[in-house]
Amino acid sequence: MSMSGARESGRRRLVVIGGDAAGMSAASQARRLKDPGELEIVAFERGHFTSYSACGIPYWVGGEVSGRDRLIARTPEEHRARGIDLRLRTEVTGIDVAGGRVRARDVDSGDESWTPYDQLVIATGARPLRPDLPGVDAPGVHGVQTLDDGEALLATLARTRGRRAVVVGAGYIGVEMAEALIRRGYEVTVVNRAEEPMSTLDPDMGRLVREAMEGMGITMVNGAEVTALPTGDDGRVRAVATRDAEFPADVVVLGIGVRPQTSLAAAAGLPLGGHGGLLTDRAMRVRGHENIWAGGDCVEVLDLVTGQERHIPLGTHANKHGQVIGTNVGGGYATFPGVVGTAVSKVCDLEIARTGLREKDARRAGLRFVTATIESTSRAGYYPGASPMTVKMLAEHRTGRLLGVQIVGREGAGKRVDIAAVALTAGMTAEQMTALDLGYAPPFSPVWDPVLVAARKATAKVREAGA
Amino acid sequence: MSMSGARESGRRRLVVIGGDAAGMSAASQARRLKDPGELEIVAFERGHFTSYSACGIPYWVGGEVSGRDRLIARTPEEHRARGIDLRLRTEVTGIDVAGGRVRARDVDSGDESWTPYDQLVIATGARPLRPDLPGVDAPGVHGVQTLDDGEALLATLARTRGRRAVVVGAGYIGVEMAEALIRRGYEVTVVNRAEEPMSTLDPDMGRLVREAMEGMGITMVNGAEVTALPTGDDGRVRAVATRDAEFPADVVVLGIGVRPQTSLAAAAGLPLGGHGGLLTDRAMRVRGHENIWAGGDCVEVLDLVTGQERHIPLGTHANKHGQVIGTNVGGGYATFPGVVGTAVSKVCDLEIARTGLREKDARRAGLRFVTATIESTSRAGYYPGASPMTVKMLAEHRTGRLLGVQIVGREGAGKRVDIAAVALTAGMTAEQMTALDLGYAPPFSPVWDPVLVAARKATAKVREAGA
Repeated sequence: MSMSGARESGRRRLVVIGGDAAGMSAASQARRLKDPGELEIVAFERGHFTSYSACGIPYWVGGEVSGRDRLIARTPEEHRARGIDLRLRTEVTGIDVAGGRVRARDVDSGDESWTPYDQLVIATGARPLRPDLPGVDAPGVHGVQTLDDGEALLATLARTRGRRAVVVGAGYIGVEMAEALIRRGYEVTVVNRAEEPMSTLDPDMGRLVREAMEGMGITMVNGAEVTALPTGDDGRVRAVATRDAEFPADVVVLGIGVRPQTSLAAAAGLPLGGHGGLLTDRAMRVRGHENIWAGGDCVEVLDLVTGQERHIPLGTHANKHGQVIGTNVGGGYATFPGVVGTAVSKVCDLEIARTGLREKDARRAGLRFVTATIESTSRAGYYPGASPMTVKMLAEHRTGRLLGVQIVGREGAGKRVDIAAVALTAGMTAEQMTALDLGYAPPFSPVWDPVLVAARKATAKVREAGA
Repeated sequence: MSMSGARESGRRRLVVIGGDAAGMSAASQARRLKDPGELEIVAFERGHFTSYSACGIPYWVGGEVSGRDRLIARTPEEHRARGIDLRLRTEVTGIDVAGGRVRARDVDSGDESWTPYDQLVIATGARPLRPDLPGVDAPGVHGVQTLDDGEALLATLARTRGRRAVVVGAGYIGVEMAEALIRRGYEVTVVNRAEEPMSTLDPDMGRLVREAMEGMGITMVNGAEVTALPTGDDGRVRAVATRDAEFPADVVVLGIGVRPQTSLAAAAGLPLGGHGGLLTDRAMRVRGHENIWAGGDCVEVLDLVTGQERHIPLGTHANKHGQVIGTNVGGGYATFPGVVGTAVSKVCDLEIARTGLREKDARRAGLRFVTATIESTSRAGYYPGASPMTVKMLAEHRTGRLLGVQIVGREGAGKRVDIAAVALTAGMTAEQMTALDLGYAPPFSPVWDPVLVAARKATAKVREAGA
């Protein structure tokens, strides 16, 4: 690649680093707004795939989604047909901010060259935490971040005679993979460092998740730090070891979270936050750089509840970032105002949701608060299929401002968190929430929606706590 | 009953007219805050039951709810055990505002007497529209407003050999009763005056409901005014006649709506609104009357979107009203700020939801608007059980303020309207909604929630429409 003729003809070039949700959404949206005569778009992706749903990998592994290609929203060919010069298996190895160019290497041939840009989008995603443990690279140990990871895991499952699976980590990926492996007929053990699974919830709500998972026949090992992944004579993993015990394993899945993939950005001197993610303004422009944008799992996002930056790797944010970046690069105007920290997940029929602050987040932010936990049902109690759910609400001491909601229940529980997500965004108090005009009919809700019941109790607690 | 000794001893008396949701919620909440030594509570109910879910009647008739008593949240005995002097089969026949007393008649004995009050709660509910048609009182013609109605209908169904049912009206009650009768094995015809069913939706969304109901084997007759309910030689209803046709019927269910039951209040000179409902302030105090409160289906409520009063008979509002009244009567402070017009319903597996303004409401309110209608799915497209849904959004011209949302879909569609209900309450724009941090995971939502997709399209329409 050499300096193209693009600039001479007045045509500008957008370079995108990373071909998944944020990068390709940005590219696609920019393309919608600017035709190829105005804007050349070059996208580099070091892997084989574009625009796929990493969030769907557990369901593919579990067999609910029939094949890898179902997770691909748009193929490389489709992107190319829309006038995006997509270069697969091409890894960007350097960003020259002063020179306005990136260096990229063909992964197969090793050839490297520079590509100049007028606008740059950094969408390098996140890298899985891979603890420095003996045996972590042994055959039979798998991450589940990429489609390649999913294929490798499925190949192992197809080969493995034993039926013992150990999942390390009990966050979203961990619990979703526990479900996937149960579906595949494995005996599943989840080994988790914290005292309860789902540390994105408060421990009292995490306990409900643990009890439900134990009820599904999953062995939950909490408060356990993994010390090694012992291997057998064949070199394959054979167990997960903690200080106190060893859990036999025919396959091990690592679900211990990710960190922003920002080594390129750091080397280029771009601004990183306390969580290692790129810092942007609300237009998703890298702070201090007019023509460099960043989005997806490699950036930090503004938490609208605390006003502080967080790292929340989630496909739904990545897509929004890409949309905003593409709009701005394409000459429009859009912003991503921030997040409230909403997440929803399930393990078998258990639904788990949260938004806003946990108790420890609130304390860390210096906020005083009350908590209210209630039990209700997804439908009118007399309606068939009404299932129990627990809703916990945090509201600020004195003001009653909603700070967070956590929900654990069965069918119909999880998406109720959206009520609280919108209320948090709007800065509502728990008391204001008690009057919300939510959809009511017996098949859909008790006459007081569980979120309203929690809001009533939180309101009462705020009053009792007084000044 | 004579003037009690209550007042002399400093004890006050709360009189409640109407023993269902609003009245008994008010009584119960007042009792929680004031013990019987401070506040005597007398509640008059002309029927046999208290605190029951009228909304649940279709599911009882349909057989999904096993019996009448399942619909009763709190029995007369339970209320009495909590220190409420509940008088069943006692109809209030007059309110003497100047004298601070109500006249009540024992329905069985015909005895009448006056009861003085310090505080009065009017919770007289709504009365079903019963059109003045030949045959409307014939055996086999049923309303479904009260438990007594439900029992009478079930008795007819048990007796009737024929399997042809005609439902008059295609609002919530009409479509829910269509489902109930289908479940009972009837051939169901729904005769509806409007051009499409569910006139709480715009006709383009109502059409989706009609098509789905036709797909369930229900005969939908639209644009048809009922002219008579012809009877047979046995005096029982045998058909529903319109100007153009006659639909044979072994049973007829009237689901044609209700009006506020405010004849008592009107006779007492209390203020009524344009829809015939009592007018209150936000504390649910009848306007101009310090010690008279009203709530539930007999009042008008403030529409927060238009700033105008509406009549929305719905159990969830009635319960909130009762809670607010009881708190205020009990010496606390609470308000009911108003509604945004949220409603959700289902017919078999079709979910129907709406909040805010329809096109005709917006026009009537003098608002210019854009509409956006999108199709999406309840879950990620690749996830099993992802079902299609249509979301229509109205946003104000120029400002983009959210005005309303309508949703028609299958499992997972209906309660998504809550997102819009909260956004309406908060006065959000469609553009602000595009950034909402809603719960995302493949089993719960596409990466862009359908409501967000609608918000994006509405935002684009607002921009296109320009100034």
